[in-house]
Amino acid sequence: MAQRDEKKITKREEDYSKWFHDIILQAKLADYAPVKGCMVIRPHGYAIWELIQKNLDDEFKKTGVQNGYFPLFIPEEYIEREKEHFAGFAPECAVVTEGGGSELTERLYVRPTSEMIIWSMYKKWIQSHRDLPLLMNQWCNVVRWEKRTRLFLRTSEFLWQEGHTAHANEEEARERTLQMIKVYRDFSEKVMAVPVYWGPKTDNEKFKGAIETLSIEAMMQDGKALQAGTSHYLGENFARAFDVQFQSKDGKLEYVQATSWGVSTRLIGSLIMSHSDDQGLILPPKLAPVEVVVVPIYRKDHEKAVVMEECQKIKETLGDGIRVHVDDREGYKPGYKFNEWELKGVPLRIEVGPKDLEKGQLCLAQRFGGSGKEFIPRDEAIASIPKRLESIQDQLFQRALDYRKSRTRVIDDLDEFRTFFTEEGGGFALCHWNGSGEVEKKLSDEFKTTIRCIPDDSFGLIEDGKCIYSGEPSSRRVVMALAY
Amino acid sequence: MAQRDEKKITKREEDYSKWFHDIILQAKLADYAPVKGCMVIRPHGYAIWELIQKNLDDEFKKTGVQNGYFPLFIPEEYIEREKEHFAGFAPECAVVTEGGGSELTERLYVRPTSEMIIWSMYKKWIQSHRDLPLLMNQWCNVVRWEKRTRLFLRTSEFLWQEGHTAHANEEEARERTLQMIKVYRDFSEKVMAVPVYWGPKTDNEKFKGAIETLSIEAMMQDGKALQAGTSHYLGENFARAFDVQFQSKDGKLEYVQATSWGVSTRLIGSLIMSHSDDQGLILPPKLAPVEVVVVPIYRKDHEKAVVMEECQKIKETLGDGIRVHVDDREGYKPGYKFNEWELKGVPLRIEVGPKDLEKGQLCLAQRFGGSGKEFIPRDEAIASIPKRLESIQDQLFQRALDYRKSRTRVIDDLDEFRTFFTEEGGGFALCHWNGSGEVEKKLSDEFKTTIRCIPDDSFGLIEDGKCIYSGEPSSRRVVMALAY
Repeated sequence: MAQRDEKKITKREEDYSKWFHDIILQAKLADYAPVKGCMVIRPHGYAIWELIQKNLDDEFKKTGVQNGYFPLFIPEEYIEREKEHFAGFAPECAVVTEGGGSELTERLYVRPTSEMIIWSMYKKWIQSHRDLPLLMNQWCNVVRWEKRTRLFLRTSEFLWQEGHTAHANEEEARERTLQMIKVYRDFSEKVMAVPVYWGPKTDNEKFKGAIETLSIEAMMQDGKALQAGTSHYLGENFARAFDVQFQSKDGKLEYVQATSWGVSTRLIGSLIMSHSDDQGLILPPKLAPVEVVVVPIYRKDHEKAVVMEECQKIKETLGDGIRVHVDDREGYKPGYKFNEWELKGVPLRIEVGPKDLEKGQLCLAQRFGGSGKEFIPRDEAIASIPKRLESIQDQLFQRALDYRKSRTRVIDDLDEFRTFFTEEGGGFALCHWNGSGEVEKKLSDEFKTTIRCIPDDSFGLIEDGKCIYSGEPSSRRVVMALAY
Repeated sequence: MAQRDEKKITKREEDYSKWFHDIILQAKLADYAPVKGCMVIRPHGYAIWELIQKNLDDEFKKTGVQNGYFPLFIPEEYIEREKEHFAGFAPECAVVTEGGGSELTERLYVRPTSEMIIWSMYKKWIQSHRDLPLLMNQWCNVVRWEKRTRLFLRTSEFLWQEGHTAHANEEEARERTLQMIKVYRDFSEKVMAVPVYWGPKTDNEKFKGAIETLSIEAMMQDGKALQAGTSHYLGENFARAFDVQFQSKDGKLEYVQATSWGVSTRLIGSLIMSHSDDQGLILPPKLAPVEVVVVPIYRKDHEKAVVMEECQKIKETLGDGIRVHVDDREGYKPGYKFNEWELKGVPLRIEVGPKDLEKGQLCLAQRFGGSGKEFIPRDEAIASIPKRLESIQDQLFQRALDYRKSRTRVIDDLDEFRTFFTEEGGGFALCHWNGSGEVEKKLSDEFKTTIRCIPDDSFGLIEDGKCIYSGEPSSRRVVMALAY
């Protein structure tokens, strides 16, 4: 019989970063690759990514977005053009200089993002207002050379989606920018069960090529912020860089308006750090590759047959709507299996033993939000499962929201701000700010805090006050925090 | 009003290769990228790829395969190891030599295939027979530097899936190799409606690292063969190269047995060249992003409302099971829309005009297998659609099969072989062969033909005869053809 691995997960209190990596490695979400700064996404982690993709992709398509695929390599000429305009990505790129056994005449950059290549194609495809809006997205890998890397949060190669839209006017492009950040917000809150602040980034923090960047910002269990998705209004910037003009309805030549927006495998980092505990991963049902695991318990051969039959029946009864897995592995003790599925974050476990069969009951155990093992009459137990999963989903969101509240503070005094971040562990500070990039930089130099976003009006943070640093007048609070 | 583009598709008879590229560009399946040898997959092409992915992925998962993701970059050290063992891919690789603004100490190869990186991870993950079988797949991009490229058929970067499995013994690994080529065969024939020969490659033609390579081979409309998928039995080759051993049930250390198998966006090339005609693309319904397009016809505003209502009703009635699109674009004449959807290969078109509404009828037009426009009572028309789509799917397969038959010949005489390939346009020649690589090479030198595969026993090609080249005894026929 295989025994539970001796490896234990480091406690959050002891070493938060080690806890995070322990969960990733032991729940087999990912592993370190032999290439520096890269990772391997293992089946359990990738299955979560597939659910993220499916959920988001459906939402994108509902808004009229279509998928396509653009090349991995960007000619140096385009990078130069981008550098000239925005001085953005060139320094963090991987560069291909050899191909097919000989040196290339033009060096190729591995895409860090695809605005450059996509807008060079849009130039070919867009001539008239009839060709607009053009709404495309791609799911792909990108590479940004990182010195300090962390699994899922910051790796030299990562998977993401990048949407790139082209519009006939500013209003429509700005609407799209807003629409997509709301798609991300809803996804984070309703599917990932991770509450977010959202709104524009400051000029210092926005994407280099953008006129405005909107972001969603989640709080991790160490009180730090994680930027989980961004949506950029790019104005005419890329259209001008690649000379993309269209003939408007009244026959004028105008530059095309652009947006881009993306989320990445970083979301899995956000998921882990929002919900998990010292026992391992906790997954919201909507993103759990296995929502319900059924573990058969038997000692003798004649027991096995009836127990297994019941397990299969349960799976069939729960049907297509719920992701059920029967763990019928031989040679592993039930306790080993329980531990493994707990570590892997499966929301609900059903145990089926001969005694349960005799009594017409099932044993249910929730990974989160339950009260230990519950023995419940069979049909009642099965009938309760959809509601339980819903409830777990809701409770996880509520817990994350409560946690964020507990570590969010309205602060108007610089000393209190200092104490909050240097002695009290920090969190989200809701502060007045005079809108100056210099003040932002000074706060960042002194406390390492950044302005995560200027929360949308709906957060109720519009009020008159004084900048926490300069004392100058301010009309709304912003979110300041340490960040990943 | 927008008019039909003046561009025409070159006829197959005039220039087959130009016909192929005309279809790709005009049906907006793909476009040339600014990077030499690379392509951009446009929404219509990518939607076909998504359907291919969905279909295959479901089949893979039914056999227990799980998806994951491995890094894009392979350390040079592994490439050296592969070169030493198999001398396979190194010459056709793209190489990254700079990252983050400075020269790398170890050069990184952009993956041409992932055996090397995957087996370096399998070494970490596999210790015991309990860890086997390990059945993984990834959907990703790969790069192979190509001098002469063709959209979808041969591009420097392409999308594919690569499955990599690890087994405790040869029997199981060989079974998996066979199982996966059958998955590909069934997919090609039942979903793509493209009949294939399948069986082992000759030693000359197999994958360098493999003990045996099985392939599926389709015939294009110019009589050439297209290798559409391969499944490799790799034996202990990669396990030895990366020292991957496991403890067997009786406690011995043994090398792990491997398979790998893949199909790529090349399948879209196969799809185009199997079914399309001089009017444009023809898609089998199972891979048509739009199976049924509904085109409203109206002149006056009061007509528009009722016509559009009927179009929407049709879409709702056909429901979730069938991919229906209502083409409600303003400013395009119906004739323009008909042409465009024909060019894009949509299997079935429904036209709805005020006269049809009056008469309680619909106008149906099939892209293939129909008899012009058919006016049919409304409910009857709608009820007929699932059967029509099935029938189109079947007829396309039958037509491709008939076509293959018409250009397949049993040949026992070298002169006839010569005439077949040099004067009669060629096709598949079913010939006896003595099993010698030299004979294979001589035929290839003289006629450019290759042995596409040694068809499985089920093709009924086992019989005694004499090698077409050497006259030596042979016990089965093989498929010889020109190939893409």
